[in-house]
Amino acid sequence: MRFASEQHLDDGVVERGFTLGEIPGILWTSGSASAPAPLILLGHPGGLHKMYPRLVARARHCAAEGFAAATIELPWSGDRPRSATAEEARADLRRALEAGEPVDDEIVDRLVLPLVEKAVPEWRAALDALLSLPEIGGPVGYAGGVIAIGIRLAVVEPRISAALLFAGSFVPHTLFEEARQVTIPLQVLLQWDDEGNDRQMALDLFDALGAKEKTLHANMGGHTGVPQFEGDDGNRFFARHLK
Amino acid sequence: MRFASEQHLDDGVVERGFTLGEIPGILWTSGSASAPAPLILLGHPGGLHKMYPRLVARARHCAAEGFAAATIELPWSGDRPRSATAEEARADLRRALEAGEPVDDEIVDRLVLPLVEKAVPEWRAALDALLSLPEIGGPVGYAGGVIAIGIRLAVVEPRISAALLFAGSFVPHTLFEEARQVTIPLQVLLQWDDEGNDRQMALDLFDALGAKEKTLHANMGGHTGVPQFEGDDGNRFFARHLK
Repeated sequence: MRFASEQHLDDGVVERGFTLGEIPGILWTSGSASAPAPLILLGHPGGLHKMYPRLVARARHCAAEGFAAATIELPWSGDRPRSATAEEARADLRRALEAGEPVDDEIVDRLVLPLVEKAVPEWRAALDALLSLPEIGGPVGYAGGVIAIGIRLAVVEPRISAALLFAGSFVPHTLFEEARQVTIPLQVLLQWDDEGNDRQMALDLFDALGAKEKTLHANMGGHTGVPQFEGDDGNRFFARHLK
Repeated sequence: MRFASEQHLDDGVVERGFTLGEIPGILWTSGSASAPAPLILLGHPGGLHKMYPRLVARARHCAAEGFAAATIELPWSGDRPRSATAEEARADLRRALEAGEPVDDEIVDRLVLPLVEKAVPEWRAALDALLSLPEIGGPVGYAGGVIAIGIRLAVVEPRISAALLFAGSFVPHTLFEEARQVTIPLQVLLQWDDEGNDRQMALDLFDALGAKEKTLHANMGGHTGVPQFEGDDGNRFFARHLK
């Protein structure tokens, strides 16, 4: 893990860009922290530059509650090399959506399964590196999108103690089996009026999750309209489980 | 409104029993409040004695956040006179449930519609009386069960500014039409694994609610197992809308 940049944000949060091999990432820590901080991994759909405004807002929110936050670029996104297979699957998905056709399971599998296979070991490698820093103390939470990545991480990574997942569509059917194996506490966010989202599938997936403590928060506001107060609710969820 | 009893609970909350005509009720206020407090009406399924432990816990929680809280007995429940028609509908419901049969819409209508017709004007009369007290200042929220009563109140009572509703089954079909007319901010609690609850109907009802700001919180824990943290979440919901 190599730190490539450092800047001090106006609220005392220190933002450091890093690379982990070829993977770019960002770490946010509170400049005033005196003890090693629990860590929230910030998931996203890929494209750090595009996602930066939302990620930094969530990271500041985390830091205000005493959490460090970190994210890495997803495979085949942002400045990382593209994959012909992934591009093809994305194009097929776009075609189906533009034609108003139902999205074939086979397209979803081609799009999401290789992404999960490649991204999850990368997140775990990032976790190794982040937890070796003196300012990070664990425990660790995962918060954010690509729910398939969050679920796989929750199943295979014992250092993750709680997860806040964003329900979205395009969930491979095999994920329902994995969902039953999740036992860590979960909070799931669903945008009820998100037209690009298969609401019934999101509800079925919430139902399948094996955790004894799971909470669904459904809100209005469309795909990107998660209400402000869910940021505070997320902090309280992590405070209950990571502190 | 006649106050019949007064006791000081150990956390400085003053509990006063009252009667409003033939209707018994309870008012909880913070002994330390210096300004008129916003009011939360605590809904319940009927039977003040049986519900008292849960009601007083919620009232203490409200008082800690600076809210007054009040409840009244429902028609045909607790110490109030019985209704032959209501008893018959309850018996028919019990028979259907014990036989494992689906509950007929006609039974639900006979059970819930007259209750709503009688209870809502009583809640409004209680509100008149409560808002005339110098220690109560408004605005007003409604929190709790019999969702049909909460929805009707939200539609007809302009002094209610926000409602926290407990999703339960046995919802008359006409309620879906009323739900569309609700415009105040709502938070709806659903116990996901409540076997006595028709989950799909609860989700359909949430969908039907006309409010632009509505949030669904689904949790595990069975019918009476609403997690502790939802008490805090409820207070924050009301703090956003009543303060």
